[in-house]
Amino acid sequence: MAKDKITLTLPDGSQREYTSGITGYKVAESISKGLARAALSITVDGDIIDLDRPITQDASIAINTWNSEDGKYTFWHSSAHLLAEAVQALYPDAKFGIGPPIENGFYYDIDFGEEKISQEDLSKIEDKFIEMARKKSEFERKAISKKEALDFYKEKGNEYKVDLIKDLEDGTITFYTQGDFTDLCRGPHIPDSGAVKAIKLTSLAGAYWRGDVDSKQLTRIYGISFPKQKLLKEHIERMEEAKKRDHRKLGKELGIYKIDKMVGSGLPLWLPNGTILRRTLESFLREEQVKRGYKEVITPHIGSIELYKTSGHYPYYQDSQYNPIKVDDEEYMLKPMNCPHHHRIYSSDMRSYRDLPLRLAEFGSVYRYEQSGELSGLSRVRGFTQDDAHIYCTHNQLKQEIQHTIELTQLVFKTFGMPVDIRLSYRDENDEKYGGDSDYWNRAQKEIKEVADEMELDYTVAPGEASFYGPKIDFIIRDAIGRKWQLGTVQVDYVMPERFDLTYIGSDNNKHRPVIIHRAPFGSMERFTSILIEHFAGDFPLWLAPEQIRILPIADEQHAYATYCFEKLKQQGLRVTMDDRSEQIGGKIRDAETGKIPYMLIMGAKEVKAETVSVRRHKMGDVGTFKFSDFISDITEEIETKALPNKD
Amino acid sequence: MAKDKITLTLPDGSQREYTSGITGYKVAESISKGLARAALSITVDGDIIDLDRPITQDASIAINTWNSEDGKYTFWHSSAHLLAEAVQALYPDAKFGIGPPIENGFYYDIDFGEEKISQEDLSKIEDKFIEMARKKSEFERKAISKKEALDFYKEKGNEYKVDLIKDLEDGTITFYTQGDFTDLCRGPHIPDSGAVKAIKLTSLAGAYWRGDVDSKQLTRIYGISFPKQKLLKEHIERMEEAKKRDHRKLGKELGIYKIDKMVGSGLPLWLPNGTILRRTLESFLREEQVKRGYKEVITPHIGSIELYKTSGHYPYYQDSQYNPIKVDDEEYMLKPMNCPHHHRIYSSDMRSYRDLPLRLAEFGSVYRYEQSGELSGLSRVRGFTQDDAHIYCTHNQLKQEIQHTIELTQLVFKTFGMPVDIRLSYRDENDEKYGGDSDYWNRAQKEIKEVADEMELDYTVAPGEASFYGPKIDFIIRDAIGRKWQLGTVQVDYVMPERFDLTYIGSDNNKHRPVIIHRAPFGSMERFTSILIEHFAGDFPLWLAPEQIRILPIADEQHAYATYCFEKLKQQGLRVTMDDRSEQIGGKIRDAETGKIPYMLIMGAKEVKAETVSVRRHKMGDVGTFKFSDFISDITEEIETKALPNKD
Repeated sequence: MAKDKITLTLPDGSQREYTSGITGYKVAESISKGLARAALSITVDGDIIDLDRPITQDASIAINTWNSEDGKYTFWHSSAHLLAEAVQALYPDAKFGIGPPIENGFYYDIDFGEEKISQEDLSKIEDKFIEMARKKSEFERKAISKKEALDFYKEKGNEYKVDLIKDLEDGTITFYTQGDFTDLCRGPHIPDSGAVKAIKLTSLAGAYWRGDVDSKQLTRIYGISFPKQKLLKEHIERMEEAKKRDHRKLGKELGIYKIDKMVGSGLPLWLPNGTILRRTLESFLREEQVKRGYKEVITPHIGSIELYKTSGHYPYYQDSQYNPIKVDDEEYMLKPMNCPHHHRIYSSDMRSYRDLPLRLAEFGSVYRYEQSGELSGLSRVRGFTQDDAHIYCTHNQLKQEIQHTIELTQLVFKTFGMPVDIRLSYRDENDEKYGGDSDYWNRAQKEIKEVADEMELDYTVAPGEASFYGPKIDFIIRDAIGRKWQLGTVQVDYVMPERFDLTYIGSDNNKHRPVIIHRAPFGSMERFTSILIEHFAGDFPLWLAPEQIRILPIADEQHAYATYCFEKLKQQGLRVTMDDRSEQIGGKIRDAETGKIPYMLIMGAKEVKAETVSVRRHKMGDVGTFKFSDFISDITEEIETKALPNKD
Repeated sequence: MAKDKITLTLPDGSQREYTSGITGYKVAESISKGLARAALSITVDGDIIDLDRPITQDASIAINTWNSEDGKYTFWHSSAHLLAEAVQALYPDAKFGIGPPIENGFYYDIDFGEEKISQEDLSKIEDKFIEMARKKSEFERKAISKKEALDFYKEKGNEYKVDLIKDLEDGTITFYTQGDFTDLCRGPHIPDSGAVKAIKLTSLAGAYWRGDVDSKQLTRIYGISFPKQKLLKEHIERMEEAKKRDHRKLGKELGIYKIDKMVGSGLPLWLPNGTILRRTLESFLREEQVKRGYKEVITPHIGSIELYKTSGHYPYYQDSQYNPIKVDDEEYMLKPMNCPHHHRIYSSDMRSYRDLPLRLAEFGSVYRYEQSGELSGLSRVRGFTQDDAHIYCTHNQLKQEIQHTIELTQLVFKTFGMPVDIRLSYRDENDEKYGGDSDYWNRAQKEIKEVADEMELDYTVAPGEASFYGPKIDFIIRDAIGRKWQLGTVQVDYVMPERFDLTYIGSDNNKHRPVIIHRAPFGSMERFTSILIEHFAGDFPLWLAPEQIRILPIADEQHAYATYCFEKLKQQGLRVTMDDRSEQIGGKIRDAETGKIPYMLIMGAKEVKAETVSVRRHKMGDVGTFKFSDFISDITEEIETKALPNKD
C-alpha cells in the first residue's frame, strides 16, 4: 500500500506524482524550500487540512500561505487557540466556548466567571499571547472518543464544550493541543505557534451562548494577528484611514445624507449635497445608456402581489419583503424589485423581432426588510434605488448584449478609478433553490463564459453564487485603500420570460421567447455612494463635487468683482458659492478646506485690478493666478473629461 | 311698507336705490333693456331666485345671464323641466325622479315602466323638447302645503316624488308649472321656455333611486341646452375636439403611459416616450429652480406614522391614505405628502437667519387612496409625483418669496402657452377644519393679498378654498380649447413650523419660527402631463416631443447619408430615429404623421448629392430643402427658445 503512487494537481494545472501517504509539508518542500517555510496548511480537493496529515489519493491541491484566503483562515484559527492559551494562563478559571476565524481575524467567546474584563486587560492578554507564540509550540492533533472528550470537559467543569460535544458523532471528534492548552477542534492548524508574530485584540463584546438570548452571555474577544509586525502596523494604519473615510462620518460632515429615526430606520434622507452627487451619477449613467439605445421608464413604488407570485419572489423571499398593504380587495407590496414591472411593460405591446433588443432602464426605488441591527449608514438600508435595466433580446442577440453590458459596467468603474475583478457566478447543481430547466442553466453559463473568454477577461468562477433565476457576472471593485466591494452585476435569465409569458413575433411569423439580461452597474445608488465617499475620502472629482468652486473675497472692496465672477460661473452651469462673510481670509480658506471644496478663488485688490483669479486647489494649496477665462476653460475641461483628483 | 326704499349693491360695487318689493326683472330693466332681455335669474346675497320675485331688503345682487355660472345653472335647471315635459308628452306613464342642473348641462332620472328607451328615442325627445320650448310657456311658482303635494303625487302614482316630499318640511314646499307639466321644485327658473333654443340629449345611463343599489334603477337622460343654435354647434365641435385630444386615447397611441391591472389600478407605468416627456419637464423646472437658489433633496416613499401624527394628517385624512405597514414595532405609511420629510430635513441641522430662505425641492412621489370608480388615465391616479418645494423663510422674507414663487409659476404656464387665472383661497371662518391661530390666518391672508396687489395681478377671492394649514394662491389655467384646470398652488403655512418645532437663530441670537411656503407649479407630473397632452393634442413643442426628428431615406442608396445625418443629430443630443424599412416613402411619411413627429427629413438622391435635407413639418407638409447645418441650427434655436408649435 505504501508503495502506491498518487497524482496531485497544482493550482496552475501541472501534475506531480508522489508516494501515497506524503504530507502537505513534504509536497511543499518538493516544490521549493521557501514554499515549505511559508506553508500554513494545504487544501486538498476543497478541504483545508494540517500540513502533517498524509495524502493518500489523487487530488487537486494548493499549498496555503499567508497570501491565500485559506492560509489566513488557518493562521487565524490557530491564533484563536493561542488567545485561549494566553487567557487560560492569566485566568485559570476561564471557560471557553467557541473560537473561530472570521473574515478579518478571529474571536473567542469566553466565560470569565465573576471576573470582569475591560479594554485595559486586553494589552496584558496580548503580551501573554506573544509570549505563548514565541514558544513555537506545535499544534498536535488527536482523535478522541466521545466519552473521553465528555469526561475531559466534565472534569474541567466546562458546560459549553460538553454542550458542543453532545451534538457530535463518536469517531469524528478531535482535540488539538499546543503548549498547555487543549481544545476541542476539527482543525486545521498551522504547524507551530512561531509563525504568529503580531497580535491586536481589537474589541470586546457580549455574545449569548449559541446566540440564544435565554442562555448565558459570554465575553467575546475579537483579534487579528499577522506573520510580521510590519503587517500589523499597516493594518492599523489602514483601519485608521478607513475610519477617517467612514461614509457615516463624512456623510454628515459633507451634508450628503441623514438617517432620521422619526422618518424611519434605514430610510436615508438625501440632503442637498448628496442629491447633487446622486443626480450627477444618474445623469452620467443615463447619458451612457441613451447612447447605447436604452429607453428609460418610470414605474410605481408599489405593485399588486400578483406580480410577485408570478415571478416566484412571493412567498419565497417574504422575509426580506415588507408586509402587504390591503387596498379594497387587493394586496399590494412595496416593490422589492423592479423586474416584474418592466416585464409588464414589455408585454404591454405586441413585440416583433424588429423591436429587439428592447432595453428598459429605470432608476427604480425598492424596499426590502433588513433587521434593525444590520442597518448601517447608506451601505445597509431598507429603501434604495437601483440603476436597473432589463434587456429583452432574441437568443441570437444575447452574447452581443452581454458584451455591451460588460463594457458599460467596465466604463463606469474606470471612470471612478476603481480596478475590477470579475466573477462568473454559477448555480450549485445540488442546491434546489436554482429553479428552471437544467438545459437553460447550462446554456446560459456557457454563454457568459464564452463572452468572457472572447473579451479575454480575467475572471474566476464561483459555483453557488448565481441568482435563483440565472447565472451572473459579478464585478468586485477595489477601492482606494484596497478594500473589495461587490457592485454591478449582469444576469442572464431564461426563467422570467416563461413565468411572465413574454413573447415576440420572429421573422418566421411565429411566437418566440425573448431572453432577459438584468443589469445594474452601480447596484444601488445608496451603497455605491457610500463606497464612493470612502473611495475618494470625500475628495470627489470635480464633475461630481456638490460644490465645485467657492469664491473668497478678501474684503468688501472685492465684492463687486467677486459677484461678477460668481454670476459668470453660475451661468456656465458650475456649482459655485461665495463666502461674503466679514471673516479673515484664513478662516474662509480653512472652512472651504474642511468642506473639501475643489477650487477656491481668492479675490484681492490685485486680482480685481488685473481681472484675474488667484486659484487654490483643495489639499494642494495655491496653484497660481490665472486669467478668469483661462480658469473657466481649464475647469470645464476637467469636468468634461471627468478627471480623477490627484492622489495625496 | 310698500313705500320703503332698499339699496341694492351691484357686482361692480355701485349702489342703487329701489322701492322695496321690486322684482329682479325690473332691476335689470332699470339698468338696460338689453340686460332685461338677456336676464335669466337674479342672485340676491348669494341665493339665486326667479326674476319675478320681490326683493324687500338691502342686498348685494347680480343679474344672471347666459354668461354667468348662476345664469347657466338656472337655464339648465329649467331645461330639465322641459325635458320632463317632452317625455311626459311622449310617454304619459313615465314617472319622474329628480332632474338637477350639473356642471355641463342637466339630467333627469325617469322611470319609464315597461318601456325601454334607447339612443334612437333621444332625437324624438329632442324634437318634442324644442316644440315645448317654442311655446314660450312661463315657469309659474306656487307654494303648496305638504298634504296637497303628497295628494298630487299619490294620485299620479309617483312614489319617487312622494318619497322626496316626505323629507320636506311643511310650509317650504313649492311646485313649478310650465305648459302642462308640473314639478316639485325649489326653483329658481327662467321667465319662460322661449329662451331655450337648442338641445342635445347626450347620453343615457342607469341610476339607482337615491343612489341606493337596493332601490329601483331609473333611466337617466343627460342633456345640454343653449340659448342659440350656434352655441350648440360650437359645443359639439368642442366635444369632438376634446374626444380627439383625450389623453387616454393619445397616451396609448403615442406610447406615453399604460395602466396595467396586474401592476395595479391607478398606478401608471410611464412608457419610454412618456418618460422622456416627464424627464424633460422635470429638467426644465429643475433648471429654473437651480437659478433661483432651490436645493433638491430626495426622500423615501414611506415614513413613520409619527410624521403624520405630528403634522395632523393622521388620522384626520385617513380615508385618502393607504393602510399602515407594520415593520417590527413601528408603523409606516406610504407617503401621502412630502411636507413632513422636508420639515425633518430642515430640523436635521441648526439653522441660522443667514441660511434662510432655505428652499427644498423634490420631485416627490406620493400615494393617496382614491375609489376605483374615480380613477381615470393620468388625471386621477393613486400614485403621483409632485413637483414639490418648501421654502423656509423669516417673516421679513415672506412677501418676497411669495412673489418669486408666483413669478416662477407664471413663467411655467407661459412656457406652455396657457393663460392663467389667479384665485386667492381663504379659509371659511365658520369651518372648524381650518386649524391654527386666527391671527396667523389673518396675517397670511393679508400678506398674499398684498403681494397680489403689489404685483398688480388680476385675481378673484374664494373663501373656504384654503388648505387646512393656511391660505393659498391657486392658478387656474385655460387650455387650447378653453377648458379650465386648477394647477399650481402657492400656500403660506404658519401651522407646521409650530407642529414640527422648526426654529432658526436670528441675528438677535434668539430662536425664532420660520414661515413655510408650499408650492408646486405643475401640481402633479401625472395630471399635468394629461393636461399637456390634451392642450397640445399630442403635437408637443419640439423641446418636449419624445421623438423630435425622423429620417426617412427613400431607397437603400440613401442609407449611408441617412446614417451620417442620424449620427450627427444624435451627437447633438437630439431625439432622432431612422425609418430604414423597405417601404414606400408615402407610407413612411404617413406613419411619422400618425406618430406626430415634429420633423421628417426625406432623403432622396438629390439630397445626398447636394448634402441637403428635405424637411417636412408635422401637419404643415413640405417646408423646403435646407443645408443640413442650417437645419440643425434652426431646430436648435427652436428647442432653446422652447418655441410653441404653430396653431393649426
